[in-house]
Amino acid sequence: MSTRIYAHYMIETPYHVEHAANVMAGEQSSGTFTRLANETDALREAHGAIVESIEMLDALDAPSLPMRADLAPQGHTLFQRARVKLSWPLENMGPSLPNLVSTVAGNLFELKEFSALKLLDIELPDSFASVYPGPQFGITGTRQLSGISSGPMIGTIIKPSVGLSVAETANMVEQLVVGGIDFIKDDELQANGPHNPLRARVDAVMPIINAHAERTGKKVMYAFNISGDIDEMRAQHDYVVAAGGTCVMVAVNSVGLAGVTYLRRHCEVALHGHRAGWGMFSRSPHVGMAFTAYHKLWRLAGVDHIHVNGLRNKFSEEDDSVITSARACQTPMFETPDAGYQIMPVFSSGQSAAQVTDTYQALGNSDLIYCCGGGIMAHPGGIAGGVASLRQAWQAAMTDIPMATYAREHRELAQAIEAFGQ
Amino acid sequence: MSTRIYAHYMIETPYHVEHAANVMAGEQSSGTFTRLANETDALREAHGAIVESIEMLDALDAPSLPMRADLAPQGHTLFQRARVKLSWPLENMGPSLPNLVSTVAGNLFELKEFSALKLLDIELPDSFASVYPGPQFGITGTRQLSGISSGPMIGTIIKPSVGLSVAETANMVEQLVVGGIDFIKDDELQANGPHNPLRARVDAVMPIINAHAERTGKKVMYAFNISGDIDEMRAQHDYVVAAGGTCVMVAVNSVGLAGVTYLRRHCEVALHGHRAGWGMFSRSPHVGMAFTAYHKLWRLAGVDHIHVNGLRNKFSEEDDSVITSARACQTPMFETPDAGYQIMPVFSSGQSAAQVTDTYQALGNSDLIYCCGGGIMAHPGGIAGGVASLRQAWQAAMTDIPMATYAREHRELAQAIEAFGQ
Repeated sequence: MSTRIYAHYMIETPYHVEHAANVMAGEQSSGTFTRLANETDALREAHGAIVESIEMLDALDAPSLPMRADLAPQGHTLFQRARVKLSWPLENMGPSLPNLVSTVAGNLFELKEFSALKLLDIELPDSFASVYPGPQFGITGTRQLSGISSGPMIGTIIKPSVGLSVAETANMVEQLVVGGIDFIKDDELQANGPHNPLRARVDAVMPIINAHAERTGKKVMYAFNISGDIDEMRAQHDYVVAAGGTCVMVAVNSVGLAGVTYLRRHCEVALHGHRAGWGMFSRSPHVGMAFTAYHKLWRLAGVDHIHVNGLRNKFSEEDDSVITSARACQTPMFETPDAGYQIMPVFSSGQSAAQVTDTYQALGNSDLIYCCGGGIMAHPGGIAGGVASLRQAWQAAMTDIPMATYAREHRELAQAIEAFGQ
Repeated sequence: MSTRIYAHYMIETPYHVEHAANVMAGEQSSGTFTRLANETDALREAHGAIVESIEMLDALDAPSLPMRADLAPQGHTLFQRARVKLSWPLENMGPSLPNLVSTVAGNLFELKEFSALKLLDIELPDSFASVYPGPQFGITGTRQLSGISSGPMIGTIIKPSVGLSVAETANMVEQLVVGGIDFIKDDELQANGPHNPLRARVDAVMPIINAHAERTGKKVMYAFNISGDIDEMRAQHDYVVAAGGTCVMVAVNSVGLAGVTYLRRHCEVALHGHRAGWGMFSRSPHVGMAFTAYHKLWRLAGVDHIHVNGLRNKFSEEDDSVITSARACQTPMFETPDAGYQIMPVFSSGQSAAQVTDTYQALGNSDLIYCCGGGIMAHPGGIAGGVASLRQAWQAAMTDIPMATYAREHRELAQAIEAFGQ
């Protein structure tokens, strides 16, 4: 069993790539700009990061990110791109999530040797799994909590994002549960503002969900956005649980790793991770973090779901990237059995029945939450029609029947195709 | 007294700038991609974000960040850059730091309308100050804790960053306190790893600092890196305090906002904020956050010090940017008296006596921590000579005497000039 931490990067440098990679390794372990007397060979042997591999990519004739002119190497003309793999002994920081981040994603993005540097992936020794319990419910537990044993969980987001009163929110929830929805979430902008306080929202929403559950046996999962300070989140979580809720949501970047880790240890329901702000890490190809690295941090912290955007979304993300992210969520994280830490990817943004076939074919399974706004609300048959059309679209996809064929005998799907295309 | 939140952005868009700014405002408040029936005029009036101003900058003929081809406007040729100011009613999220971040730095970096988007600054209503106590010690309190009533605090970082044993660390601390240092910090890579556990380090270091304080009356401030999970940080903080320590350090990005806010409420000593990972937000001019916006979040969370790099540093940051950051730390945050929330900027990276005159002249004061590695360790007169040379350089700068002149009667400064230039 490995006791080393591995991290994969994309780098770009006007220096020799081997030199640049050694600078990264040195700076993030035992090295300094100039070697010190007390940086002994034994210390370096025990604690130095190792450059495990370098894979040369293309070279550019201009730097992708600005570099300081006074620090450029003499006579350089090319900016070489490469994939680099580094490793560290666990001994350096122990199995600590915040200190892992300081090591693999700390003071290296500014290093003068680089005109681009992005963290692509991390591989962690199993000892992290013994310290961080990871997702408490994950895919299987979320299905148990919601009673949706197969197929996707069909979901939606309360809109407008912010501004609805508690009563208006409850009214919307009533329509949604009657319409057959599986999952509802607060927008990431709607947390505990004075016009719609979290507890008043819980008081108004949960009786509707509970009454529906008593009538039908189906408890719709509502992700209450409890993002906030530590004591506040803990108290709000308890309030949601006491009211019979089955899910709380946090904007993970806004709360941070220590906060999410803390909440997970206390949490009794599914923990829905919203990645608002993710574009800061992802939007530039030249700096930041790829989703594969990023989402592992939050799985370790303990989220059960995380957002991955959707095919043909309304943002700048490409479809390939969306599917890569969703697959990553479903891929085991550790070698130890029972430490797969698989979580449910949450698809959203401009989704309707139109993207279902492509989503299923690209992902190969339906272990996901499929959130639609207009795809449900703007369906000609109303909310119930929208939800039905999505189930029909998934049924068609999962049984390998062309959507148009399936739509001949399924009116709501036919209406969705008419309204949203296919 | 304003109850609105203001945020300033740099944007770049192939769309009409007014349209793009309205999309930002809509997406981060009451709007959705298509207007919904329940997004009433009254709701929009009460909760919609407002585009306060637009200042046109230059236009480029290519996008700075990749855009999805299928989402580009027809026939566009120019990518217009602009500064945009938006505002939100506090009513939307209340004075909550995590929910502020979801609003001003949430799901907008990915919006398809933008080929660049960076958060430059935020202005907050005073109600945030009534919820978040901010820095407990700040500049004045740090001076009181350390007994350094005027001039900079001369500091250093234990190196190698990671790998020293507890005994080796203590040995280094002994030399530093005897050498006259004011401030010592753990590296951000050195937290609580098995080879140098935090408590063992406290046990070894604090008796040296305490004994020196008893002998001389001067208690050197040691920033113990307690970055970790919530309960761990709290317990480690208590351990440092019980041992007589006066400062704890956290890697703020690695721990996150809720974690730092929580620690601050419990903290009895100075809270030293390390910004490891900051390059992810800052390195690209086209995405992320400027320091002015970024550091206000951590001041509100309650750090007393934050790193700002140093002049002619070894990273890719320009000198102007360093000084802008340091000034920002010292600028009051709120209009309310006693809610200035000023904190000490921490200069470091390749610093020695050589940058002192320029630093003082650019900043105009010495309310800072000035950390040197080689500038102290590699001084010909040893640690005591290095520390003395820095005090002399600051004395010269603050009394407006050219360093070379001052060096004629101050041997350690002369040696520093010889060794490190001026």
